[in-house]
Amino acid sequence: MPKGYHGKILLVDLNTGTLTVDERDEAFYRKYVGGSALGAYYLLKNTPPHADPLGAENTLVLSLSVITGSPVPGQSRMTATAKSPFTGAIGDSQSGGFFPAEMKFAGFDAIVVTGKAEKPVYLWLHDGEAELRPAEHLWGKTTDTVEDIIKEELGDKRVQIAQCGPAAEKGVRFAGIITMTSRANGRTGMGTVMASKNLKAVAVRGRKRPEIADKKAAIALAKWGSDHFPESDIYGMGLHGTAEVLRYQHKLGGLATKNWMSGVFDGWEAIDGETMTETILKERDTCFACPVRCKRVVEITEGPYIVDPKFGGPEYETLATFGAYCGIDDLAAVAYANQICAQYGMDTISCGATIAWAMDAFEHGYITTADTGGIELRFGNAAAMVQMTEMIAKREGFGDVLAEGSARAAEKIGGGAEDLVVAVKKQELPAHTPHLKRSLGLIYAVNPFGADHQSSEHDPSYGNYPEKMAELGLTDPQPPTVLNAEKVKYALYTEYLYSYLDTVNLCQFVFGPSWHLYSPHHIVDAVRAVTGWNVTMWEIMKVGERRLNMLRAFNAREGFTREDDKLPKKLSQAFVGGRTDGVAISPEEIENAKDIYYAMAGWTNDGIPTPWKLAELGLEWIEI
Amino acid sequence: MPKGYHGKILLVDLNTGTLTVDERDEAFYRKYVGGSALGAYYLLKNTPPHADPLGAENTLVLSLSVITGSPVPGQSRMTATAKSPFTGAIGDSQSGGFFPAEMKFAGFDAIVVTGKAEKPVYLWLHDGEAELRPAEHLWGKTTDTVEDIIKEELGDKRVQIAQCGPAAEKGVRFAGIITMTSRANGRTGMGTVMASKNLKAVAVRGRKRPEIADKKAAIALAKWGSDHFPESDIYGMGLHGTAEVLRYQHKLGGLATKNWMSGVFDGWEAIDGETMTETILKERDTCFACPVRCKRVVEITEGPYIVDPKFGGPEYETLATFGAYCGIDDLAAVAYANQICAQYGMDTISCGATIAWAMDAFEHGYITTADTGGIELRFGNAAAMVQMTEMIAKREGFGDVLAEGSARAAEKIGGGAEDLVVAVKKQELPAHTPHLKRSLGLIYAVNPFGADHQSSEHDPSYGNYPEKMAELGLTDPQPPTVLNAEKVKYALYTEYLYSYLDTVNLCQFVFGPSWHLYSPHHIVDAVRAVTGWNVTMWEIMKVGERRLNMLRAFNAREGFTREDDKLPKKLSQAFVGGRTDGVAISPEEIENAKDIYYAMAGWTNDGIPTPWKLAELGLEWIEI
Repeated sequence: MPKGYHGKILLVDLNTGTLTVDERDEAFYRKYVGGSALGAYYLLKNTPPHADPLGAENTLVLSLSVITGSPVPGQSRMTATAKSPFTGAIGDSQSGGFFPAEMKFAGFDAIVVTGKAEKPVYLWLHDGEAELRPAEHLWGKTTDTVEDIIKEELGDKRVQIAQCGPAAEKGVRFAGIITMTSRANGRTGMGTVMASKNLKAVAVRGRKRPEIADKKAAIALAKWGSDHFPESDIYGMGLHGTAEVLRYQHKLGGLATKNWMSGVFDGWEAIDGETMTETILKERDTCFACPVRCKRVVEITEGPYIVDPKFGGPEYETLATFGAYCGIDDLAAVAYANQICAQYGMDTISCGATIAWAMDAFEHGYITTADTGGIELRFGNAAAMVQMTEMIAKREGFGDVLAEGSARAAEKIGGGAEDLVVAVKKQELPAHTPHLKRSLGLIYAVNPFGADHQSSEHDPSYGNYPEKMAELGLTDPQPPTVLNAEKVKYALYTEYLYSYLDTVNLCQFVFGPSWHLYSPHHIVDAVRAVTGWNVTMWEIMKVGERRLNMLRAFNAREGFTREDDKLPKKLSQAFVGGRTDGVAISPEEIENAKDIYYAMAGWTNDGIPTPWKLAELGLEWIEI
Repeated sequence: MPKGYHGKILLVDLNTGTLTVDERDEAFYRKYVGGSALGAYYLLKNTPPHADPLGAENTLVLSLSVITGSPVPGQSRMTATAKSPFTGAIGDSQSGGFFPAEMKFAGFDAIVVTGKAEKPVYLWLHDGEAELRPAEHLWGKTTDTVEDIIKEELGDKRVQIAQCGPAAEKGVRFAGIITMTSRANGRTGMGTVMASKNLKAVAVRGRKRPEIADKKAAIALAKWGSDHFPESDIYGMGLHGTAEVLRYQHKLGGLATKNWMSGVFDGWEAIDGETMTETILKERDTCFACPVRCKRVVEITEGPYIVDPKFGGPEYETLATFGAYCGIDDLAAVAYANQICAQYGMDTISCGATIAWAMDAFEHGYITTADTGGIELRFGNAAAMVQMTEMIAKREGFGDVLAEGSARAAEKIGGGAEDLVVAVKKQELPAHTPHLKRSLGLIYAVNPFGADHQSSEHDPSYGNYPEKMAELGLTDPQPPTVLNAEKVKYALYTEYLYSYLDTVNLCQFVFGPSWHLYSPHHIVDAVRAVTGWNVTMWEIMKVGERRLNMLRAFNAREGFTREDDKLPKKLSQAFVGGRTDGVAISPEEIENAKDIYYAMAGWTNDGIPTPWKLAELGLEWIEI
């Protein structure tokens, strides 16, 4: 068995309750590595085209990688993969924390869940053993309660738990999988799939560390990271969390405000990372073996919004979507909405963005108090935002409509409300505006699982490329507002790299190439140290390309085409105010970039991988 | 200036006799690196489409690279680039020895020669200085005499000299550039171009070693090579020269015999590397800083063929083409023919193969003694072969016809003689038969400068891939006689790597991935050590792809299309005898593989780089 792996992939058939171990050879692990590629592999193999994402035919994969649980920082991450009930395309989401490393120590590389249990169950993995246990007593309970009960009944406080929350049980389309009551595989509705299978939770605990080929090298690489952290660009993110970027986004005119009407938010300072540090921050948390400690733990003990530190604290995306998107500058309200999402298990981006859309529609008169049950769903109304978040989690009242996400809600409401949706493939845009980093606009349009800000390196809004981009053959920076062939190349190359990061499950803050801690060549060093394989950056990029093509091929099988790769209308309306005043992105620009992107990717002009591209990547077995 | 380079590219305008230095920035060197890519760059920039390859408009580039002259073994190589008078396509050829390192020490990274001198001149580079000197007294003289005269007049025995020989002056289409009277940029007629410019020689001498970023790492890598050499697969090549492979080729049925009638040669043992070691070998020679010492020095002091050690000794290709191709098992005769080629400056492959073709045509009656002036040009007639080699060098009698190469000679003779030609783009096939390594057949067909055996890794005829091929993402070996998508991928990926090797000018025996000394990841280590750049295998492969696309784009500009990428008819006729008895390669197989290859390469189905592929590689400036 290759170093770094157990060679044990747990197959869970919930139709029959059978657990088996799939043992794969070294060639399989070298080809599919782990994470997203491994998840896509099992999804493509097990789930037929046009399967109901909430039916027994869907496959949910929770996958680690070779690096998970090793001493390398940024490695404790897990990918969730399934057909998405939110987008109808492939679903794919990553999380950090301590669960992934603990799952590795429990003795497994991945869990592949098929079928549907008759009654709620949870999965218990410990030291190479696996069992399904009844979970009827956990059904309907919030994440904190479920944590307490499972730890109690397993008699071990150090058990790590991944679970779907009550929101997922209710079928909220953007429900995530929650670990540690504070981390989430948030996007694409992976929690919703988990709940649809009656799988309430996965609990893990163990001491089975896989063998590492060159432990000394792995530790030296970790030490390099710790040593260089204080002078690295990511140091600020350690101090103030991901929210550190909020002030820069505002200054850049890149902080999407009032449902993407503007790129600047007057109330930015109230919800900024530094403000959070100075006010409600209780402590800094981290992922297994990471020196960055970007994770926030906040506490509010008085006022209308009491926030418990066990739910962590808001990330930048959460502050932006519940805050700026909604025109809300009330940090406590945002932190409270974040807590609801952690407690009930929802993606904060889609939740906040859907409410922002509803506010926009309300301001336009497309939604009225008759719809909302009397709630004045206006920009800036923090109480309404919090109330709506709870109602979505429970699918109560108008929350039942919004629980479908903005695209489906707009379809229901119809008329001009549809033009206000800011989503791709029905998934709401995260809080990085592509106006001054146009490659991101292209990636939003083409990404297989809907708009995503962590599937490529954003092209720099200011100045030059960092020197380390040359390691990927990127040496020719372009102005912020162009989207030419060089920008498309930038998008595609960095997409391959990020695709690999989501396959080897390495944190993009720690290993992403530009303003972060390590350089791309360190990824090679890390994988070499753990596996002993002489991997090269070529092999790495080709694995990333393979994973991207697997996702794209899955979508093509489902009938997705070029038509689905488009930005929402709102982005062609100019931003108002600030540095990006008057800046918009035209559909023609994206269509032109798609021509180039598809050609460079080796796909048809309809965005579908050609048989020869699939063959090149060893994916000739996928039938589109 | 980047480490490893001088940053000085000498521009020689022979129309005016002006010498200028082109200073390029670091980005230029990182993008084009050196060798073949750098040569193609200046050729594409300077020479307009459809220029006469023997006219003043052609550009001849002699280029080194970052690694040249460093302590890394296999680095003392030089690329010659120009439009080829032999193929009409791009010309590209590499040589080793001591000239390349010495040219680096003379203070230059490359020489770009344009125009044509009124009278013969030679170029003298020393310690960063350059001058043109008269060479009328050298014109018409053989390589050994020219060496003696130049060294004498420069007063330094350690001057290194590259020159075109009398054959080039006479316009033999496959005349090479000779260094040390024993090494050659043999193929594609680069010597013919040099002579057409009235540039007789380039003499170099100096002590300007460029700075190396991490000398310790470079020396450690060299030491690793020396340490591992004795147990490496290349050890035998050190003992018996490249001719070591001759016996294996015969056993495999891969030793092209009697103008590619058969893959086995009864007389193989007489011309084998071990036989040479035991009989005429005087000593083993080497290239600068290389431990392999594969270069032969032979001596014959009696009999009809007196061979002087100053002309080195025959390589495998020479033994195969003058030997097996011609059905000749007379080692002395072959060594003598090799000496003529070194003395007059001709490519041994095309010379031997053209004579073999003529013998085949003679046996068929298409050529008669009326053509040859009475010579019985039959297979096995060693004396006729030697005589014809001399006549070609001097363009005397029937030699004047054969000096045009087999394709042009066949056109002239017409009839069935054309079907006997074994060439692609008019360049004769080297002595590696693709019958049991089909990816090579494809590469023969598509290679921009005609059939070449050093533009990709040959797929293994026996057994599995060496483990190190996984470093290039190649893990799925296929049977010898298939040419499916996986084989095409193998051809393309290894073509990128070899394309890089010919750009960074590293020896393929030392750094080629499969049965040789170092592994691909060592190439990364070597370039990093010298430059200090954190190059990755991705960057390396993309440089290789860039160079391949530059060559391909040059050809497209000249009007080359898919039609020019085809194997000669003879290869579709089955071999007779031995392990490959009955084995042939059908045109359909190659056409099918081209469809796949072009698609994988990002080219049109006519084999032309698309604008987006050029843009991806930063070559949008090339107009096709």
